Amino acid sequence: MDFQYSPKVQALRARLIAFMEEHVYPNEQVFFAEIEANRKAGDAWIPTKIVEELKAKARAADLWNLFLPESELGAGLTNLEYAPLCEIMGRSLWSAEVFNCSAPDTGNMEVFARYGTPEHQEQWLKPLLNGEIRSCFAMTEPDVASSDATNIEASIVRDGDEYVVNGRKWWSSGANDPRCKVFIFMGKSDPDNVSRHHQQSMIIVPRDTKGVTILRHLPVFGYDDAPHGHGEVLFDNVRVPVSNILLGEGRGFEIAQGRLGPGRIHHCMRLIGLAEKALEDMCKRSLSRVAFGKPVAEQGVTLERIANARILIDQTRFLVLNAAQMMDTVGNKAAAKEIAMIKVAAPTMACTVIDWAIQAHGGAGVSNDFGLAYAYAQARTLRLADGPDEVHRNQIGKMELKKI
Amino acid sequence: MDFQYSPKVQALRARLIAFMEEHVYPNEQVFFAEIEANRKAGDAWIPTKIVEELKAKARAADLWNLFLPESELGAGLTNLEYAPLCEIMGRSLWSAEVFNCSAPDTGNMEVFARYGTPEHQEQWLKPLLNGEIRSCFAMTEPDVASSDATNIEASIVRDGDEYVVNGRKWWSSGANDPRCKVFIFMGKSDPDNVSRHHQQSMIIVPRDTKGVTILRHLPVFGYDDAPHGHGEVLFDNVRVPVSNILLGEGRGFEIAQGRLGPGRIHHCMRLIGLAEKALEDMCKRSLSRVAFGKPVAEQGVTLERIANARILIDQTRFLVLNAAQMMDTVGNKAAAKEIAMIKVAAPTMACTVIDWAIQAHGGAGVSNDFGLAYAYAQARTLRLADGPDEVHRNQIGKMELKKI
Amino acid sequence: MDFQYSPKVQALRARLIAFMEEHVYPNEQVFFAEIEANRKAGDAWIPTKIVEELKAKARAADLWNLFLPESELGAGLTNLEYAPLCEIMGRSLWSAEVFNCSAPDTGNMEVFARYGTPEHQEQWLKPLLNGEIRSCFAMTEPDVASSDATNIEASIVRDGDEYVVNGRKWWSSGANDPRCKVFIFMGKSDPDNVSRHHQQSMIIVPRDTKGVTILRHLPVFGYDDAPHGHGEVLFDNVRVPVSNILLGEGRGFEIAQGRLGPGRIHHCMRLIGLAEKALEDMCKRSLSRVAFGKPVAEQGVTLERIANARILIDQTRFLVLNAAQMMDTVGNKAAAKEIAMIKVAAPTMACTVIDWAIQAHGGAGVSNDFGLAYAYAQARTLRLADGPDEVHRNQIGKMELKKI
Amino acid sequence: MDFQYSPKVQALRARLIAFMEEHVYPNEQVFFAEIEANRKAGDAWIPTKIVEELKAKARAADLWNLFLPESELGAGLTNLEYAPLCEIMGRSLWSAEVFNCSAPDTGNMEVFARYGTPEHQEQWLKPLLNGEIRSCFAMTEPDVASSDATNIEASIVRDGDEYVVNGRKWWSSGANDPRCKVFIFMGKSDPDNVSRHHQQSMIIVPRDTKGVTILRHLPVFGYDDAPHGHGEVLFDNVRVPVSNILLGEGRGFEIAQGRLGPGRIHHCMRLIGLAEKALEDMCKRSLSRVAFGKPVAEQGVTLERIANARILIDQTRFLVLNAAQMMDTVGNKAAAKEIAMIKVAAPTMACTVIDWAIQAHGGAGVSNDFGLAYAYAQARTLRLADGPDEVHRNQIGKMELKKI
Repeated sequence: MDFQYSPKVQALRARLIAFMEEHVYPNEQVFFAEIEANRKAGDAWIPTKIVEELKAKARAADLWNLFLPESELGAGLTNLEYAPLCEIMGRSLWSAEVFNCSAPDTGNMEVFARYGTPEHQEQWLKPLLNGEIRSCFAMTEPDVASSDATNIEASIVRDGDEYVVNGRKWWSSGANDPRCKVFIFMGKSDPDNVSRHHQQSMIIVPRDTKGVTILRHLPVFGYDDAPHGHGEVLFDNVRVPVSNILLGEGRGFEIAQGRLGPGRIHHCMRLIGLAEKALEDMCKRSLSRVAFGKPVAEQGVTLERIANARILIDQTRFLVLNAAQMMDTVGNKAAAKEIAMIKVAAPTMACTVIDWAIQAHGGAGVSNDFGLAYAYAQARTLRLADGPDEVHRNQIGKMELKKI
Repeated sequence: MDFQYSPKVQALRARLIAFMEEHVYPNEQVFFAEIEANRKAGDAWIPTKIVEELKAKARAADLWNLFLPESELGAGLTNLEYAPLCEIMGRSLWSAEVFNCSAPDTGNMEVFARYGTPEHQEQWLKPLLNGEIRSCFAMTEPDVASSDATNIEASIVRDGDEYVVNGRKWWSSGANDPRCKVFIFMGKSDPDNVSRHHQQSMIIVPRDTKGVTILRHLPVFGYDDAPHGHGEVLFDNVRVPVSNILLGEGRGFEIAQGRLGPGRIHHCMRLIGLAEKALEDMCKRSLSRVAFGKPVAEQGVTLERIANARILIDQTRFLVLNAAQMMDTVGNKAAAKEIAMIKVAAPTMACTVIDWAIQAHGGAGVSNDFGLAYAYAQARTLRLADGPDEVHRNQIGKMELKKI
Repeated sequence: MDFQYSPKVQALRARLIAFMEEHVYPNEQVFFAEIEANRKAGDAWIPTKIVEELKAKARAADLWNLFLPESELGAGLTNLEYAPLCEIMGRSLWSAEVFNCSAPDTGNMEVFARYGTPEHQEQWLKPLLNGEIRSCFAMTEPDVASSDATNIEASIVRDGDEYVVNGRKWWSSGANDPRCKVFIFMGKSDPDNVSRHHQQSMIIVPRDTKGVTILRHLPVFGYDDAPHGHGEVLFDNVRVPVSNILLGEGRGFEIAQGRLGPGRIHHCMRLIGLAEKALEDMCKRSLSRVAFGKPVAEQGVTLERIANARILIDQTRFLVLNAAQMMDTVGNKAAAKEIAMIKVAAPTMACTVIDWAIQAHGGAGVSNDFGLAYAYAQARTLRLADGPDEVHRNQIGKMELKKI
Repeated sequence: MDFQYSPKVQALRARLIAFMEEHVYPNEQVFFAEIEANRKAGDAWIPTKIVEELKAKARAADLWNLFLPESELGAGLTNLEYAPLCEIMGRSLWSAEVFNCSAPDTGNMEVFARYGTPEHQEQWLKPLLNGEIRSCFAMTEPDVASSDATNIEASIVRDGDEYVVNGRKWWSSGANDPRCKVFIFMGKSDPDNVSRHHQQSMIIVPRDTKGVTILRHLPVFGYDDAPHGHGEVLFDNVRVPVSNILLGEGRGFEIAQGRLGPGRIHHCMRLIGLAEKALEDMCKRSLSRVAFGKPVAEQGVTLERIANARILIDQTRFLVLNAAQMMDTVGNKAAAKEIAMIKVAAPTMACTVIDWAIQAHGGAGVSNDFGLAYAYAQARTLRLADGPDEVHRNQIGKMELKKI
């Protein structure tokens, strides 16, 4: 048992922190200003120049595809090694893409790497690994509670050499991005299968296939999240070749499960970085503001919250890192409870800490001047992404009861 | 002691509810669609046609200026009578203006009615009561903790027959609206006065005076709150005649105190309406969604939250109504603790209930499809408006200790 | 709508407060010292002399049987009038008995008054009203979740002119008191009735009937609650005449429902008094203790908690008083939701406030020096008495959903 | 970084768990029954036979003095190695003594081992290590907020070859035990020293010295904690030889700081064991009780709480273990923040989890049938022992601010 990072991780962290300090933090305002300028010019969905520039630098600095354990393709790091890096990226809401480590591409690349054919990998994985294209994951549906996979209404029906894909999806993040070239689509290929976890399949749908229509962009708490964004997408009799199926019919649930684990580690570690940043902001602000004769920092409530924030952050970090190690050692399936636990713990923690930071900033906290309201919107949304907290707590509770 | 509304209030409520059902609720989408169309056409700050149409209808229906106790000018209702009406208006985020009952105009009209000269009233109060113009309250400053009034840095300096006004203000709500014609401005006229509550004055600054510049619009959680919005405003050597002073030099704090009480009742009761609406939405959604074989409504956590929401809403409503009665019977000053208490209780309650409603809606909850994220942003902001919770809890605590 | 007590209530409150100040508060230590002396002498279950003395004084002062709305028997007060008196009594954990207003006698007297025959009333109600005997309510069972009345396993079986009563009950409060002369016993007389709410009956079981055995005393958090206490009682082939049935076979659930409403108002209002007392204690203590250079009262966290305690207490009080008025005006059944709501809200509130008071007292808080730990134990237990919170929240949630 | 226990720790855990299963758990009722019998016979403060029997067995099993890192005296384990064993002991409220690992003896033995002279060690440490005598730590005072060490009023005044010790102490745990033979007493020897942390000294006071009087036993939440208990002790002109001073005059604060760290790790890890046990109890009970047609375990609220309990326990465990490693690697002083954090986090967590378990047990939860109310009382008290949470959060907050 050892709570210290390994020398390898410490070295990677040092390099990543140095990159963030040199290239990312100084460009926080540049990034948002560029989007605002694009928005005013009529199209907020244009990829930013600043990110493209920094991608080149990160790649040159060998800070690229850090998320991918397969060393022939990515950085070859374990989850436990990558997680602390993910935390650092999370301190900036947009920096993960700089290192080609941003969702949903990371999960999609993992799917292509593990379940794709050599053809899939040549066509889609290679440009994704190069940061040349982006991708989308089309799973959640507006009309049903998608946290229950058996609710899925989208269909994948074989017709000769093709599959016909129908369905309405939303929260298809990144669909709006012009660089997005491919969807991984989840639907039912065998809705009557008695095994409720073999009814679903996953299939590759190129973005420009006929019948794919982005209906609208979904905001979160008033933020459009441009240039990434979240799409509601209609798949209307979309036809793709049978070779586009991933792993085989009826294996969609299996792929989804495999895909989720690392994604949650990433999300959760980024949230820890985000919360750390919010705590720093809270400390700075409360040291600099005076009310009723003394700095806000000296007022008991502030110290209480700072202390509680430190405790919440540190204990959540250990929980996430432990889940990462579990995944590395016993696999995603055996680590199911630990993964569900961090999915519950990290967003709630981050919402709490960021909310305190907002309060410490007064009116500035809900504006965009410190990025805290935007950070809150992101963290709050992650209490719903991949299924609401309640679904995960139900599962954890059931697993715990089985031990009795 | 009687917890039932009086027959007079019941009749008013019935009329107001009928108006809401006939004219407001059916136009919820119309309102937001009109703003969106304006935004796309390049100016989101244009007043909406729908509100102007409904204002005429509300006035014709004798549901106009309900907030103003002075019966020769307004509806002549006590705070206790008006508060339940305020709750109903609060169910829609934009309906208060339909009845000429929206902040900050309500507070400004009260100031003009109570502290203005006949000339002030003729020039500003009359068109405000008619809903012809709007107004702005310039108090909060970006560079200091404004919850401590002695921190205010803006200045009001006499120079012959004029006052010279300087300062930077923000969260000046409504400043962006082209109908806004006048500011009530708070600044220090006597910064060295040993009495820290006699340093401030309030003065009338017409919107089109030279030196008044709206620097930018402040969003809350990504929402621009158009067409109302919140401005950051620079007052740079703005000159106004000495007759523009309200009540006299050094009486700004006194006016501010008098102005705050009713405003808090209004805000808090609207939040109760907003929370009631969110609870209704949560009930409807959880009845209609099925996950893991049964409606979400039948799952224990949902029932728990619905029950807790009902308790939280009801007890907060009584607290606010009691504060309203206190104001009516013993006055704003003697009711200071009760007013501070609702300022703390109502926004926190509303945030909690709306957050549960968001969670019950899944991803839809953070989008704009149900208005819940927008409602949350509004409620959250009210934990900071007029000073953060912590300041008010400090005051309540001190008043409680004085009883020992 | 009026949040002020009526002149009648104000006068009653003044008299009761005066009595408490003259006779109860000065005897707080006397009461516990007498019990401790009895405990050391080998029998803590002896009624205290101090309470018997004060009973005579309270009766002489016409502060007697205040709980009973029937004016020919009790004080003739409505629930709304009695509730504020109950709050005052609640400030001392043992004072309700002084006024013959303590559970479970109050509920039992209501049952005898409303559902008893003239013979029942002569034999049991009269001495109870005179404070000569005490009584017990035998409903909860150790082996099943008694919050679900259909779980009850005790039986009441007719055999000729007698009923044979069998069952094991616990939390039979007051069973240990030698003055306890009678049980009201709930059991199933018709366990197969398709209507699950007509399976139960209530029957009178005199304490000295053969087959009634008190097995043990149950402590709460280490307190034996002597001389009242809570018994586990075995009813083993206990035979009573058929005339002992209350209201008729199959009507036990109906009686239970009628009995519960006022009892909850009483409990909840007493908890409010208890919380008020704890808040006072917290204020006094924090004013008198100095740590790190200033009184604890000036440290921000203390002020925060005092403020939150004031808010929690006041809003809960209104909620309870509203439920009292509902019971008076529309009846217990129509007020079911309001009664369930206070059952949830008041104990939770009291636990929170008392817990803060404990914390403000340091180590003294968990000792018996200030009575706070004992108060906590009482309040905590009321989250379970009459069914755990969760059951009531479930019911409230369902009632709320029915409104949709 | 590695979240798994080392093979050495795993082996120790296995042996300890086996011992608990064979000797401790089967004797839970035996222990409490023996005390109850002693209490009824007039003296609850007699050491239990069962513990003495088990002590011999534990020593024979080489599970003895596990807490002491000095391998020549104790087990030679690091904090990180001992902590997981402490958790297991914590599952039973009384088992630590079986392994000679119970407070306050552990802390006192550390003091004697590190700061005592060879004579001190021969006279006091040796019999303590052998489990032949017990000891007491006299620091907290009833009249001042003792969390601020400068508040201490007890005095240690040199008079020739003796020190004269005066003061009133309380929460002197174990003082009531007849085996307690020695006090470590903290008082001011130099109250005017400008350095507020050099005013205090620690001195050895044999239990049978003239002037030492145990005034009373302090209960926690109605529990007398016999046969250990907590005393209020008067030291009235107690004279001891100058050689009894520990480390030297003015070094009391330094010793106190050194003593606190490991004690907190022990307390916190035991609380984790206690919470684990409560969670197990909650799972078992909710599986076995049926209400409204289905096991309580299947009702959503129960699953929610079980899940949250699992999360809370696991993340607190990592936090405590990390603090243990910090102490081992960088020392108690550098680990001050981590030690303060666990002092805040662990008792709060345990109170929360045990409270849920109580609720799941219905009325049985607050009785003594499942030990949950007693467990709660212990955990709640630890939010106050060594200073209330608020003091520690203040310190954590200040340390965090210093990083900015």
